[in-house]
Amino acid sequence: MMRHEMDSEREVTRMSRENVFNFSAGPSMLPLPALERAQADLLDYAGSGMSVMEMSHRSSIYQKIFDETKAKFRTVLKVPETHEILFLQGGASTQFSMVPLNLMGENGCADYALTGNFSTIAAKEAKKYGRVNIAASTESCNHTRIPEQSELALTPDASYFHYCANNTIFGTEWKYVPETGAVPLVSDMSSDILSRPVDVSRYGIIYAGAQKNMAPSGVTVVVIDKKLAGRELPITPLMMSYKLMIDKDSMYNTPPCWCIYMLGLTLDWLLEQGGVEGMEAIKRERAKLLYDYLDESRLFRGCAEPASRSDMNVTFRTDSDETDKEFVAAATAHGLLNLKGHRLVGGLRASIYNAMPMEGVKTLVEFMKDFEVSKRV
Amino acid sequence: MMRHEMDSEREVTRMSRENVFNFSAGPSMLPLPALERAQADLLDYAGSGMSVMEMSHRSSIYQKIFDETKAKFRTVLKVPETHEILFLQGGASTQFSMVPLNLMGENGCADYALTGNFSTIAAKEAKKYGRVNIAASTESCNHTRIPEQSELALTPDASYFHYCANNTIFGTEWKYVPETGAVPLVSDMSSDILSRPVDVSRYGIIYAGAQKNMAPSGVTVVVIDKKLAGRELPITPLMMSYKLMIDKDSMYNTPPCWCIYMLGLTLDWLLEQGGVEGMEAIKRERAKLLYDYLDESRLFRGCAEPASRSDMNVTFRTDSDETDKEFVAAATAHGLLNLKGHRLVGGLRASIYNAMPMEGVKTLVEFMKDFEVSKRV
Repeated sequence: MMRHEMDSEREVTRMSRENVFNFSAGPSMLPLPALERAQADLLDYAGSGMSVMEMSHRSSIYQKIFDETKAKFRTVLKVPETHEILFLQGGASTQFSMVPLNLMGENGCADYALTGNFSTIAAKEAKKYGRVNIAASTESCNHTRIPEQSELALTPDASYFHYCANNTIFGTEWKYVPETGAVPLVSDMSSDILSRPVDVSRYGIIYAGAQKNMAPSGVTVVVIDKKLAGRELPITPLMMSYKLMIDKDSMYNTPPCWCIYMLGLTLDWLLEQGGVEGMEAIKRERAKLLYDYLDESRLFRGCAEPASRSDMNVTFRTDSDETDKEFVAAATAHGLLNLKGHRLVGGLRASIYNAMPMEGVKTLVEFMKDFEVSKRV
Repeated sequence: MMRHEMDSEREVTRMSRENVFNFSAGPSMLPLPALERAQADLLDYAGSGMSVMEMSHRSSIYQKIFDETKAKFRTVLKVPETHEILFLQGGASTQFSMVPLNLMGENGCADYALTGNFSTIAAKEAKKYGRVNIAASTESCNHTRIPEQSELALTPDASYFHYCANNTIFGTEWKYVPETGAVPLVSDMSSDILSRPVDVSRYGIIYAGAQKNMAPSGVTVVVIDKKLAGRELPITPLMMSYKLMIDKDSMYNTPPCWCIYMLGLTLDWLLEQGGVEGMEAIKRERAKLLYDYLDESRLFRGCAEPASRSDMNVTFRTDSDETDKEFVAAATAHGLLNLKGHRLVGGLRASIYNAMPMEGVKTLVEFMKDFEVSKRV
């Protein structure tokens, strides 16, 4: 990263990829090789005379892109044959409804762990379709930690147990897979999917919006144990039936073709980086660098409890809203973008997903150190 | 278009934009200037150091893209201030559920005109949420025509009247706007939106998947009279509430950012071409050329009744499935792609949406004439 030779107080309006690191919580950075490939082939994919954006989803050339993307995803996340991979639309928020509409019919009751904004919305949505048991809630400590297994109040015959693996807004993550016996596990992995190995066989459903670790916004990946399909309530909208989506291989209607193609390009890059094992090693290194500095800083401090800290979304702050604001402005001027915390919690946040290079975090930490010195704390 | 200097029997595998015309029913051709703009800015949009695919949807730079796209759409289709423009996900098939979930509550009954595959599915879906009156059906003539106003059996207090303005599979279009009194008109315009002026004030809801006339697949445009919002049934999934989408300006969660951006680029091109008035003039010319030839051909014949013919999807066939198949293969080898009819009806189909240049239709007609001569009919 080249520093801007200009007053750090003034907002930079002209930037380039060489001097920008984007810490957005999503949509967020994509791997440069994936973007370069997309750019090179944008007008004419593989001598077809067409852009991928122009291809019939029923054509053999697009079907190949689709099939290969699915196969790469299966390889990368080691998805067993018991589970289907779906490429849907509507984001994780659509899954908040789709999960209960499809699974609640089993016994009319589901367990939810509330560890942040999105899991709380998911639980509220599920109440439209059945009884919801709050298995745990960290609301009283403003979601700065993840409950332990012993704290989970589980319903033995629940239709499923739902939790959000990584809480983007609060900067926490589950360090363990909840043990729920025969009750299917459903997990929103929107902000940490593909960042670490997952034993998919332990899950009934994993879902994730693409725009953090995988692809541009517009595609939602669902990994579902096929034996859970076919239980939807009669009021389930056509496009929200997992069974229909499985039967039609995500192509009941036109899928989000371009986003699926981009996911394939990201997976190519990810495979070259050592797959999810490679991603996990890098993510730990990235997060450690930032948390180590936060623990020694006299200006900044981390928001989440150390044992529950997320490797993807690092939430932090100073003791002053004014200083936080000043920091965001100065960082922006230096090409360190989107460091403002979510409006629900304020403060600061650095989202460091798969495509964020170590250099980005190093540059951020150096900039924070300089900023701290300038504040003479 | 340059003809391939090769045996027309052999499938061409290497094509380029210069020698390909894509007659796909959707996703389909996009305007070249829109694709070129997207390619040029793919790695770094407007000196932001980011691809549009990497931008936070809450950032000011993306908000500007979103707002401008919406404003351009409002200008192009002359959408009055009484109506909101939404950019949603899930395609028209998601609207098949969303419309009754939001409007059926009014009096529990809706009128549907069945003029093809998609309107029939829409009616079936609506039955999950209320009573459906079949106001008209052209099933008995295999949907080769559109019913007249006098044939519509309307329910005076229906929650709404639903019809599909253009039937992609059967190649028919409504040449008039149904008169339904105080009953709100709901129209699926997926395959003819932006191809002609529309008096939006006459409609309660217009919806359209983007992948035919507007943008890559992944965004669905909904134009809704704001007074129809807020009537959703209690079982309506969160993301299917028009009211929530209006209140959050389509950004309750992350919208399909790239597809919306591409829609904006298509609208730039469309405005340069004279807007929907310009599109209508061109579409009539395009369709006339093809239908005039079909009417005089001794080999090919049009499938739809002349008074109901679609200007967007021209369905035709020979008297032999074998000859149809041979024609598709020969046309493909000459860079005239995706001319096979939909699997439900067989035969042949040329989809000639906004981005199809006159040259494409001229080339197709010339090729059909040559093919006819070669058949010595």
